[in-house]
Formats: sequence, C-alpha cells, structure tokens
Amino acid sequence: MTTAPSLRISELPAHAGQHVVVRAWVTHVRSSGKVAFAALRDGTGVAQAVFVKSQVGDDLWARFAELTTETSVEIAGEARVNPRAPSVLDIGVTRLEIIGPSPSDYPIQPKEHGIDFLLDHRHFWLRSPRQRAIMVIRNEVEQAIHDFFYERGFLRVDTPILTAAIGERSGLFATEYFEEGTAYLAQTGQLYGEAAAAAFGKIYTFGPTFRAEKSKTRRHLTEFWMIEPEVAWNDSEANMKLQEDFVEFLVQRVVQRRRPELDELERDVSKLERITAPFPRLNYTDAVALVQRKGSTAKWGDDLGAEDEALIVEDYDKPVFVFNYPKEAKAFYMKENPDDPRTVLCNDLLAPEGFGEMIGGSQREDDYDKLLARIKEEGLPIEAYDWYLDLRRYGTFTHAGFGLGLERTIAWICGIQHIREVIAFPRMMHRLRP
Amino acid sequence: MTTAPSLRISELPAHAGQHVVVRAWVTHVRSSGKVAFAALRDGTGVAQAVFVKSQVGDDLWARFAELTTETSVEIAGEARVNPRAPSVLDIGVTRLEIIGPSPSDYPIQPKEHGIDFLLDHRHFWLRSPRQRAIMVIRNEVEQAIHDFFYERGFLRVDTPILTAAIGERSGLFATEYFEEGTAYLAQTGQLYGEAAAAAFGKIYTFGPTFRAEKSKTRRHLTEFWMIEPEVAWNDSEANMKLQEDFVEFLVQRVVQRRRPELDELERDVSKLERITAPFPRLNYTDAVALVQRKGSTAKWGDDLGAEDEALIVEDYDKPVFVFNYPKEAKAFYMKENPDDPRTVLCNDLLAPEGFGEMIGGSQREDDYDKLLARIKEEGLPIEAYDWYLDLRRYGTFTHAGFGLGLERTIAWICGIQHIREVIAFPRMMHRLRP
Repeated sequence: MTTAPSLRISELPAHAGQHVVVRAWVTHVRSSGKVAFAALRDGTGVAQAVFVKSQVGDDLWARFAELTTETSVEIAGEARVNPRAPSVLDIGVTRLEIIGPSPSDYPIQPKEHGIDFLLDHRHFWLRSPRQRAIMVIRNEVEQAIHDFFYERGFLRVDTPILTAAIGERSGLFATEYFEEGTAYLAQTGQLYGEAAAAAFGKIYTFGPTFRAEKSKTRRHLTEFWMIEPEVAWNDSEANMKLQEDFVEFLVQRVVQRRRPELDELERDVSKLERITAPFPRLNYTDAVALVQRKGSTAKWGDDLGAEDEALIVEDYDKPVFVFNYPKEAKAFYMKENPDDPRTVLCNDLLAPEGFGEMIGGSQREDDYDKLLARIKEEGLPIEAYDWYLDLRRYGTFTHAGFGLGLERTIAWICGIQHIREVIAFPRMMHRLRP
Repeated sequence: MTTAPSLRISELPAHAGQHVVVRAWVTHVRSSGKVAFAALRDGTGVAQAVFVKSQVGDDLWARFAELTTETSVEIAGEARVNPRAPSVLDIGVTRLEIIGPSPSDYPIQPKEHGIDFLLDHRHFWLRSPRQRAIMVIRNEVEQAIHDFFYERGFLRVDTPILTAAIGERSGLFATEYFEEGTAYLAQTGQLYGEAAAAAFGKIYTFGPTFRAEKSKTRRHLTEFWMIEPEVAWNDSEANMKLQEDFVEFLVQRVVQRRRPELDELERDVSKLERITAPFPRLNYTDAVALVQRKGSTAKWGDDLGAEDEALIVEDYDKPVFVFNYPKEAKAFYMKENPDDPRTVLCNDLLAPEGFGEMIGGSQREDDYDKLLARIKEEGLPIEAYDWYLDLRRYGTFTHAGFGLGLERTIAWICGIQHIREVIAFPRMMHRLRP
C-alpha cells in the first residue's frame, strides 16, 4: 500500500474530474471483455471502478480477475460523473493495488440466506446496503435524541448498570460482586433518574438495559437501549406533551436528513411525514371499550396485549396515547389517580402501523406513605428502596418521566418488523454471538 | 399546589420585573427579624426568596419558619435583579406554599462529612453546587463527543455488553445466559468496533464497560464509560492525530460553554486553554530513558506505571503521547511495528498535571497469520475469535482506534483527584449502593 493521501467515497463528488485515490472493498464485478467494472464500498458510500482494457495495460487488466467479493483495494484514477448514474461516481482506473484478497468462500453471497446464518455472520451482514441504511438511521436517531435534550437544558445522567438487591423481580441477570453479594443488571435507570431530577431539574438517561426473559417475539431483545427522561414538576399531562414533542422531533429529523436511507429501505416516507404533535389520547377505559367493540376479549383491569394495541392504532395514522391504566396492571411507583384511585397517572404510547408500544411513562408516586404501602404490597425488599423513599421523605416533588425503547422506535421509523435488525449485534435468548 | 404556570430558575433573568411562580428546594435560610431570605435551587440554577415582614402578612411570615433544608416549595412574587448580587435573582415573595416538608434530620448538613457518608447519600450529595457543576461539565463533554463524531461522519455503534466466551482474561463479571452458558460483561467494545469500521468506515462506541478488579485506587471504577472510535484506513499516525483533535475539541468546548461550572470547581482555566493540538510525542524508548534520568527503576520492556507517567508529563503543559511500546507490555491485537518488531504501533495519551492515562490506542494487527499467532501465544480460545479473525481473512484492511476513559477525562478537565465524583452513582469494589 502506498501512502498516497486517499479520499472517502463520500468525498468524491467534490473531486469530480480530479485524480483520486480510494481505499475500499469490492462488492461485485462484471466485464464485457473490453471494459470491466468493480463496484466499491467503503462504508461512507459506493462508487464504481472502470477498467478499460485498451488503456490500463495487460498487467492491470489481468489483476482485475483477482477481484472477488470483499477484496480490499487501493484504486487510483480520475473521478467522474456518469450521466447515466449520477449518484454513483466512476473512477477511471489507472492503478490498482490489492490490499487484502478475499477467498471465494466469502460467506454472504448474492442469494437468500436464512436469518440464523445471517446473524451468525453479523460482522459481514452489516456491510450490506440495507443493514448500513438501518445503522445510519439509528445513528441519526441517537444524535437527534442528544440534540433534543441538550437544546432544552436537560442533563444526561449515566445511571448504573450494576445495581444492588432490587429484589424479587423476575428476568434479572445476576453476577457476583466481590463481598457485596449479588449484583443485578439494571432493567431501568428510572429510580436513579428520579434522584437526579431532584438534583438537576430535567434529566435523561441513555443506556443499555437488560431482561433475562425467555421471550422469542420479534419485539424482544435481552439487551436493548432505553432513553429515560425524568422531569421535576412535570405532571402526567406535561409528560405526554414532552413525549409527543420528542417523537415528532426524532421522526422529522430522520425524514429531513436520511431520505436516501429511508428509500433504500423502501419506507413509505409519507407515513412518517404525518407524525406531528399532538397525538390522539385515549383513556384506558375508552380503549378497552374500543377493543371490545372490535371483538377483543380484554376486560377492564387487564393490561393491553399486542393484539389489543394493534386494534387501537388501526384507526389512526399517528402514535396513540393510552392513559391511566388500572393500578394492578402497572408498576408500583406510578402515582395514584386522585380522580379514580383504581387507576394510576400513566400512559403507553403505541406506534402506528402495528409497531406496538414504544414508550411507557407515568407521573411518579410522590406521597411517602402511599409509595411505602405499594412497595410492601408488591413484596419488594424495603431496605433496597430506602434511598428511593428518601426522595419523598425530604422535600417530595411532583415529577414524571418515561422510557423510550430505542430499538422499537427505530424499527418503526425504518419499517422493520423484527428489532433484531436495528442493533449492530443483537442479543436474544439463543443468540450471544458474534 | 396550584396549577399556576411556573418557571425554571434558569428562565428568571428573562422575566426580571415580572410576577413569577417558581418551584424549588430551599438550601438555607436566614432572617434579620424584619426581612428573611430563603436560598432556592431547582437544578437549573439558584435564586433567593425575600420575605419582608411588613409586607407578607403574619401567616406567610410564620410559615417561613417551617422552611428547612430541602423543603420543596412553590413561591410566587416579583423577580428582580439585586444590584449587590446580580447573578442570583431575588423573588419578592407574595405567596408561599410548602409542597414537601423536610425533617430536620436531613442527612447532608453544612459541615464536613466523610466520603463514605457522602457516597451512602449520593442521591442527596448530587444536589450540592460542586457536584452539580461536575455533572453539568460531564453532560457538556458527552454532548461534545457526540457532536465531534457526528460532524465528521462517524457512525455511533452500540456494541454488546453481554459477550460470549472471550476467554481466559481476568477481571470479568460473569452471568448465566440461558442455555448458551456464561456471558461476560464487556471490558471493551473494540473488537466489535473493528467489524463495524469495515462496514461503515468510521465508527465510535459510547457505552459502559466493566472490570471486576480489586483495585482501590482513585483512578478505578468497576463500571465506567468508554468512547472507542475505530477508523478504516487510519494508521497509527492518523490515529494520534484524531486523538489530539478530539481532546482539544472536548476541552475547548467546556472552556467556552461551562465557565461558571469550572469557576465553581475553582479550576485553573488557563491550564485548559493551553490544550491545543498538536501534543508532544515521545517514543517509548525515549520515555524510558527520560524517567530513568529522573530516578525511576523502570527498564525497557516494562509497561509504565502511574509514577513513571507523572515523571513524563511534569515537563509539559499539554497531554503527552507515549508511542510504540514493547509487544509484551500491550494487548495481542496491536500491530507489530515493521521498523522494530519488538514493539507495536500503539500509544497512550497521558493527561497533564499528573492525571494519568486517559487514552490507549493502536493500529490493529491486520495480518491474519500474525494475529492468529498472537492469539495462540496468549492462550486465548481461538474459536471465540473466529469472527474477529474473519476480518483479516476476507479483505483485510489497515485500521486503528483508541479508547478514551470518560471519567478520567472529565476528572482531569474538572481538576478532581478521584474519579468516583465524576459519575452519578459510582461503582467500586466496596460500593454497589445506592
């Protein structure tokens, strides 16, 4: 390899007509016998190397035959716009160096592969145009999340993954922690987020969370990323307002900046353009009545399952809030609804097109006695929640927050049915590698 | 609590002269008998509530006596600039509502507390001005990291925390993973980052990493955050260039935007203003000679310890690169130095003022046979590295990357000696709560 300064493929359009050097991988080749083409990718874009037999000389022409799928190369030549394919620049090759050959048994071939095979070769599968488009959109969503909160004065707080005995809950991954006993991998950063909201006013978390659940649905991973804002002095109403502003911001940011990737995924962008606040809001009781009219056997008091959620959203082209669920269907920390103490001040936000729940949120119980009673009712170990109760013992405060599942949100934006495709190296019950 | 629209304290300056409602916590009180003051904080800033006995009426004046440390209140009154303390707005109180009383045994009092006591009450300690300043700077650094890479076309890739048998290495937290056997908490995302660099060109990771080490130094946590960029086609030289540009960007961003918080920490900002690229570079061999001249017993072949690092940086007012360490002192994946095969193409970046190593980086071994030999030499389980070796088997590529320790970097920028203070809820050998 020479030390000639090289360009990324994404930089080529600014150098049309110039002599350039590019380092890239070959994705496929074809030859007419007089002119040969090698499609190139370098992660930033795609280009096409053009070899004209009468110009490149016999040596170089012969070396073209060595170019197999995923051979890495350094190519020099003139960058030029091909009028018939203006989005992919040609490079009229004058020099070719093979950096890394690629044996002919490269696992991913231009044919259908089974999902297990693709996941076993995730390190290569990520190189495909479709997977790259998903990861580019994921990156855009993540940056948009940080920008949204930074611009609004939220502090990001990194809550711990290793947590002490938070008790009798199921689905916890456990690990030995020196002489402190067992540590559990966090399922949520919310409780820590509440402490931080009292200190900093408006905060959000952004980190991995873990569920050791034997779920094999298309909507479950054992390791997934959650964003959990928590805001002092927000009530449930303000909490829903924040959610719809947030989701609108994320979706419109992707629409504005990642159109080529949405097109690569054949996403119907008009459906995303419609995602603007406010979102429709359904009281839980009304939602149950609605799904019952549509034939569901759900009855008041049940949590709503995926099928009920699908029935609810089918009448809407925006995400739908369902709010104020029965107490027994939801977590202990949600604030009792003063207007109907059978219920709590909470909401789920259901994505349109049947993509299911992407947010769960609530106003938090800020009454010390009520919270203590709920912890006891649930049989949770009180001593593990002493610091959490402290937040109500000293200067309690109205506050609310929510958790947005990153992979579910990205899957919806991308129009991808199974969330295993929207994270680089998914973790599922039967999947711990690569 | 009324439903009057309230303002955050940070919004008050724009409302000077107006009637405002604020919800906040009381940090301390004082009274002359005729005029009383309550200092307020709400996480976004601080303000002062002023109670004039002759104006507020007996009821309200009596209620002032109930205001203890960390009582939460809603206060209404006129916002006004106090010429003697223009940075903290006064509120001339006309209404006071106590939302959450705070018993007089509030744990954190205006006196010296031991570090264990403070860490036991971290949920309250975070409310102090100094801790808030640190967390505001942490937030600024984190946003700056994302902005730096986003603007340069890097993709953020979330690498897995739960990883399969990566083998015989020490200091791993382990957890049962269904029928897949044991999973280990990731110590680094680098190997996955290399796969992603081949797919996307330029990537970075940003996530928690774990070390189950019985270290009790001021520079170790069991759970800490790392940022790991990886760039296809970068060599060790380009890797160091990226590091110095990155560190300069982070430091200058904090200097520009977080001056009040640096002042709160009494940080000597002039020392930070000097942090501009390029940074001095010392060959490992020269570095050993330097510390030997200064009395160290280090000899060629050793890794450099904290004391040697302090000797190296004391002559400089910028971070210092030490590059190309002996092979046996460094990890198996670093590329052999073609000019001196006893060494590898790597670098550490040492913070000035004795804050120690904040980055470790290297060009990666891209030769399949050499990498395989190194994996065997280290006694690592080859089958666990099959996908990693694949990256060299098919279209290998020059690439380099580094890992920046987030807490160490923030500790240096803040001028904080112990990194336990720069993360919201630190995890150490003897610390798993709150």
